[in-house]
Amino acid sequence: MERREQILTIAGHLFSQRGYHATSMRELAKHLNLQGGSLYAHITSKEELLLEVVRQAAERFLKVLEGLKGDPVAKLKGLVRGHLEVIAQELPRATVFFHEWKHLSPPLLEEAKALRRRYEEGVQAVIQEGMEQGVFRVENLRLATLFVLSALNWTYQWYRPEGPLSLEELSEAYATLILRALGVEAREEKGGEDG
Amino acid sequence: MERREQILTIAGHLFSQRGYHATSMRELAKHLNLQGGSLYAHITSKEELLLEVVRQAAERFLKVLEGLKGDPVAKLKGLVRGHLEVIAQELPRATVFFHEWKHLSPPLLEEAKALRRRYEEGVQAVIQEGMEQGVFRVENLRLATLFVLSALNWTYQWYRPEGPLSLEELSEAYATLILRALGVEAREEKGGEDG
Repeated sequence: MERREQILTIAGHLFSQRGYHATSMRELAKHLNLQGGSLYAHITSKEELLLEVVRQAAERFLKVLEGLKGDPVAKLKGLVRGHLEVIAQELPRATVFFHEWKHLSPPLLEEAKALRRRYEEGVQAVIQEGMEQGVFRVENLRLATLFVLSALNWTYQWYRPEGPLSLEELSEAYATLILRALGVEAREEKGGEDG
Repeated sequence: MERREQILTIAGHLFSQRGYHATSMRELAKHLNLQGGSLYAHITSKEELLLEVVRQAAERFLKVLEGLKGDPVAKLKGLVRGHLEVIAQELPRATVFFHEWKHLSPPLLEEAKALRRRYEEGVQAVIQEGMEQGVFRVENLRLATLFVLSALNWTYQWYRPEGPLSLEELSEAYATLILRALGVEAREEKGGEDG
């Protein structure tokens, strides 16, 4: 792993575990076996590091959107699976993307907000497409989007892929619950097996 | 407000905004216009404060469960409304209950976990009752419970009661989405108005 990538990985761990403000550059340097000063050969500030971790997480989440294919139900299922996979594989970065970003100050804060907004809008577009095709029945697109993101995001608090529940099982169960919330009947969604 | 209550309120604000580890007793004393030392006339440690804030939040959430009445749909609606109301009214404490509690160490950590578990179990009991009465159709009780809590909890990140969306509107929209996820048709739920 390149030095800079290593720094970002450790920074993601520390920010997500202890919180951004509670993580000092000194501590970061210690975890990297570096002298405090030599960290600055690789990065300019702690805040820049925080934004960089947010960017890495955003990139992973945005890639999920790019990979979605098929009808609205297939896209929604892919979104659920992909989103939960990013959380499972990149827990520290995802935690920073969900929680620690707010400690940024302008203008870095604006970039983080824009990245988060871009992802939200992508999720919203998936739901909107389903509404327009008459597959999803939703009263309020914006609230439905926040609801879906809420249900997915919170898993960072409790889901651990090494636990008894596989990512596959979690994704299927969540996709079923979310599709039903969006007005898709289990019957349609499972292609008749159920009815 | 009594001195101790005032300390807990300010502690809740600081822990939720900056994070537990980043909040020093010194800073807390400053916000209270106290000498650092005189804080210790009221409390024994920063960690004890954190647990106390968690306890206060737990008490509010558990009161919601106690107040639930009626059939499973009514109880679920009351739960959604009550849970979102606690978040809206007690945002700092709720944030600590959701996020900062994990910085406790044993044995205080165990008490916080037990309080969180007690609430989760109460929510689970509401869903289970609906399943047993054949009102909710849910494949996996535990996952459905986590799903409902996820959707509700995450609102602490974005919902602000002074914004354009009233608590009433949010609660209704979320109750509709959650009830549908639990297999209750909009038709039944709205008593036919919709169909």
